[in-house]
Amino acid sequence: MNNEPIISVIGGGSWPTALVKILTENVERLNWYIRSKSDIDHLKKHGHNPRYLSQATLDTSKIHFYDDIEKTIEESDILIFAIPSAFLKDAMQDIKADFKDKFVISAIKGIVPDDYITVAEYFNQYFKVPFKQIGIITGPCHAEEVAMERLSYLTVACDDQENGSFIAEKLNTFYIKTTTASDIYGTEYSAVIKNIVAIASGICHGLGYGDNFQAVLVSNAIQEIKRFLDNTYPSERKINGSAYLGDLLVTAYSQFSRNRTFGNMVGKGYSVKSAQLEMNMIAEGYYAAYCINEINKKYQVDLPICHAVYNILYENISPQIEIKLLSEHLK
Amino acid sequence: MNNEPIISVIGGGSWPTALVKILTENVERLNWYIRSKSDIDHLKKHGHNPRYLSQATLDTSKIHFYDDIEKTIEESDILIFAIPSAFLKDAMQDIKADFKDKFVISAIKGIVPDDYITVAEYFNQYFKVPFKQIGIITGPCHAEEVAMERLSYLTVACDDQENGSFIAEKLNTFYIKTTTASDIYGTEYSAVIKNIVAIASGICHGLGYGDNFQAVLVSNAIQEIKRFLDNTYPSERKINGSAYLGDLLVTAYSQFSRNRTFGNMVGKGYSVKSAQLEMNMIAEGYYAAYCINEINKKYQVDLPICHAVYNILYENISPQIEIKLLSEHLK
Repeated sequence: MNNEPIISVIGGGSWPTALVKILTENVERLNWYIRSKSDIDHLKKHGHNPRYLSQATLDTSKIHFYDDIEKTIEESDILIFAIPSAFLKDAMQDIKADFKDKFVISAIKGIVPDDYITVAEYFNQYFKVPFKQIGIITGPCHAEEVAMERLSYLTVACDDQENGSFIAEKLNTFYIKTTTASDIYGTEYSAVIKNIVAIASGICHGLGYGDNFQAVLVSNAIQEIKRFLDNTYPSERKINGSAYLGDLLVTAYSQFSRNRTFGNMVGKGYSVKSAQLEMNMIAEGYYAAYCINEINKKYQVDLPICHAVYNILYENISPQIEIKLLSEHLK
Repeated sequence: MNNEPIISVIGGGSWPTALVKILTENVERLNWYIRSKSDIDHLKKHGHNPRYLSQATLDTSKIHFYDDIEKTIEESDILIFAIPSAFLKDAMQDIKADFKDKFVISAIKGIVPDDYITVAEYFNQYFKVPFKQIGIITGPCHAEEVAMERLSYLTVACDDQENGSFIAEKLNTFYIKTTTASDIYGTEYSAVIKNIVAIASGICHGLGYGDNFQAVLVSNAIQEIKRFLDNTYPSERKINGSAYLGDLLVTAYSQFSRNRTFGNMVGKGYSVKSAQLEMNMIAEGYYAAYCINEINKKYQVDLPICHAVYNILYENISPQIEIKLLSEHLK
């Protein structure tokens, strides 16, 4: 990495917009890839994203906009990916850029469909990025609250402590406190599973379960996440830290979580397909539920919450029956 | 304990009313002490408590009402206390009853003012009840959701496994699942500290901190509870179980928690005194904050959240400044 590495943010949604807002507080130049030219034009003219997090005013004088992802990658040293995991492979399919000296950060927290691998694993397998050149940015952090400059905490997980600290420093502002960690695997899978939990939480809410049950569900969920991590990639990790439990809490207790909203609709009786159509998007946790089920065939860890969500979404089991069965497992 | 021990519930508020509702599903006779004669009359006539949890319909044919606490104690084998801890000492001051063969259950989760001891400790010290004859009923459980028969989970903590199981069985219904535990000390102190956390949570909300911060606060809080317990009474306890983390979650995330409401008013600028007057009651966490501070003088455990609440409530430090300082400690 050079002394003044150039950072890019890749993606035009709420979370990348929030990251751009944070980073422009600390860097003099930022590359930003957005697929839509008209969004870029709007941003250049008005200083805010027309479609996502439009309440955030951005310092566009520091931003170099790109609508060509290949060129963005070539002209940046640090690549912060924030495209929904469902579209990552499509977006990256024709990329020929050399990743040898790139530092790749995932702010995605999702599973790459079809391959059933995490984003870190995807860049490692498809683009030969060594894990020491990969990092993860994780919450608990709703983009909406970043726009409002409400104090939030981010964790940068990275094998290479120096690179991790560099990114953490660039994300540190008066409304963002950052810490570093080394557990890429744990923070990424924890972030993936928490989306499944948020779907479960939504389903239960939709079925009429209350706050008492929700508290039990979430307590059991963090135990389930720990069990999965301990059995698949043991490491000294503080599961009750913000990057694990905190991230779970902000998602499972949020009325704004897309995963929770999707689950809520399913709990209320929508079919999976019609809930997806109604929402006009696919919640990350939908893929995650399938993927974790696939991965867990090998490990056979007891994951009752993930299993229940999988059964509801993919095996057509009635939410009512499945959550009733789940409730017998919880304590 | 006899083969058919007689259970009594002592207290007329929401939580004792919920417990009465649950117990009458399983026992043929229940003794219920309520201080107010007119409330008893109303209950006898209409089958619901006029002032608390009035939406719950109770099977009064099974209930023997008492307005004399001494007599209730004498005529019962198992005493479930559910009087606010602030009034417990007053209510018990003239009691001469013999507790030798009584089994005392605390459903209070509070600190006895002036003495700064838990309810279990109070009955042990003042009434010579051995700890093996003391149990704790703990949530996560809002009384309101019991009234609605929404699935909830209770933990009965008790040294004596047999007694614990007996109570757990009597509380088990189609909408209540019970488990037993042995960690009286841990469940009780955890329940006490979570009320302080709920005040902190309310203060932060009142000051304008958002959900991202809340998630970090609660993640740090469960670590703080564990640290306190590990340093004062080490034991093998699963801190992420429902009786610890679950109980914290249902309180800290509840809009209905009196502790959180009290904190919220303080965060919004009410003085402590005026918030108490406005609410017409004193939140349990108010005493708990003082007590934990007193107890911790001996142990010197790092308890930044409890300490911040103590400083705001008792040292007149501005919530704004204190929470800003606290935020530097969290991560």
